[in-house]
Amino acid sequence: MTHQELIDLITEKKSFLCIGLDSDLAKIPQHLLKEEDPIFSFNKQIIDATHDLAIAYKPNFAFYESNGEKGWHSLIRTIQYINEVYPKQIFTIADAKRGDIGNTSQQYARAMFEPSGSGMDFDAVTVAPYMGEDSVKPFLSYSGKWIIVLALTSNKGAEDFQFLGPEGKHLFEEVLSKSCQWGDKENMMYVIGATKAAMLSKVRRIVPDHFLLIPGIGAQGGSLTEVAKYGLNRNCGLIVNSSRNIIYASGGADFADKARIAALEIQKEMEQILKSPVINEAF
Amino acid sequence: MTHQELIDLITEKKSFLCIGLDSDLAKIPQHLLKEEDPIFSFNKQIIDATHDLAIAYKPNFAFYESNGEKGWHSLIRTIQYINEVYPKQIFTIADAKRGDIGNTSQQYARAMFEPSGSGMDFDAVTVAPYMGEDSVKPFLSYSGKWIIVLALTSNKGAEDFQFLGPEGKHLFEEVLSKSCQWGDKENMMYVIGATKAAMLSKVRRIVPDHFLLIPGIGAQGGSLTEVAKYGLNRNCGLIVNSSRNIIYASGGADFADKARIAALEIQKEMEQILKSPVINEAF
Repeated sequence: MTHQELIDLITEKKSFLCIGLDSDLAKIPQHLLKEEDPIFSFNKQIIDATHDLAIAYKPNFAFYESNGEKGWHSLIRTIQYINEVYPKQIFTIADAKRGDIGNTSQQYARAMFEPSGSGMDFDAVTVAPYMGEDSVKPFLSYSGKWIIVLALTSNKGAEDFQFLGPEGKHLFEEVLSKSCQWGDKENMMYVIGATKAAMLSKVRRIVPDHFLLIPGIGAQGGSLTEVAKYGLNRNCGLIVNSSRNIIYASGGADFADKARIAALEIQKEMEQILKSPVINEAF
Repeated sequence: MTHQELIDLITEKKSFLCIGLDSDLAKIPQHLLKEEDPIFSFNKQIIDATHDLAIAYKPNFAFYESNGEKGWHSLIRTIQYINEVYPKQIFTIADAKRGDIGNTSQQYARAMFEPSGSGMDFDAVTVAPYMGEDSVKPFLSYSGKWIIVLALTSNKGAEDFQFLGPEGKHLFEEVLSKSCQWGDKENMMYVIGATKAAMLSKVRRIVPDHFLLIPGIGAQGGSLTEVAKYGLNRNCGLIVNSSRNIIYASGGADFADKARIAALEIQKEMEQILKSPVINEAF
């Protein structure tokens, strides 16, 4: 998906919501466990109930890998289902936090972007920056594909290293300013945790035009209003993720309806924000 | 596997060699492609031919994921094969470079360490430090299991961020000194690239007693002698990995024999080093 197509999707759906598919056998409604592929059934119903409200879905690979081959099967079916049933209507994010030396990252890129080998054809993959340029570059050789680099994460452990930079600067600022030269706003985004909303001004000074993927609203405590206040740019420039608050809105047979209600509430808030955006012109 | 069991394995096999299973359909001998599971057949023959010379095997997850479900199947069969046929004789490393917020890392830990869900029961997993303590801790709750934290990697991109620390220090030193408090030498190791051998003195000043996993000898240009000179400690303290030089020593029907010859050459060099270790007492 191109940068312009993504912007069009946001305009059309009046939403910049990403739904995180952190689908866990221990948390999905128990009546699904009798299905042949409970996780896929769960994902399919969530997607069908919310596809017009969300612009993106983000399967979190850990939740699939913990079920081994079966989990991998559910993951592949999910991405194939989205691409077949909602082509060009959904931006798909492989939330895998990959990154390794060049020849290995090349294999991870094949896994995420080459369906002939892996069966998976995501639009984007989250990557970890610690190993530097050659660990990230192989993902950038795919036309129309994106990497989403971890910059400032939403968890407590973000404090451990992401604020430790040279000369009083923050490491996440170094990550932004160096890595944004490896690609451009047409193929790179950044993960910035919603719990660090006030830091978004600093982020926007370095990458004013890039899209930011913002996890951490809802269960992790971040606020959509705060994120919009500091993070919006002229093209929206935000993809805000919610996982648990939506997909586990109900543990009963009505889980898909309740997920829709939870997603609709966020979408309506986003529609308001997009209608009268307050763009922080300081950056 | 416990710390002492690992030391005993090194003493018994007179080796601290890890063989990296970067098994690639495009590089394995072509006659294997007619087998039902070519990657597993390849791994099995490599393992059978070298199991007495290596103390560890390290499947590189990227090479399996790029083949989707089939790749995942080959990976699971490989770890199950090692554990069934060579129990307690091999230290197994999931080279997956995982790391995410706590509840997600918990799922990755389940994937690597809980065979009831994933089918996989590795001794260790490589993890990325960028997201800090809570991204790493869930892996440490498993008795007898290990994490191997990326500190200083072997690739060119290591220069991008790993040397950028506060107050003139290196980030990798911060990673070492902070993270070593999250566990201990009985459940944590560090990845230190062989191409950065001279930096091992700095590393040993911070973590004198931890095992270090050293990739980068062979194809990537690192030297075993240099690594031993700066990195050995009283318990050896090193696991040195070689992948391509061993597993692709021949592209023909004799690949397993040639892999054994390549592994034997390194093992003999290691035997000499262990016989008269020069331990750098500076740290």
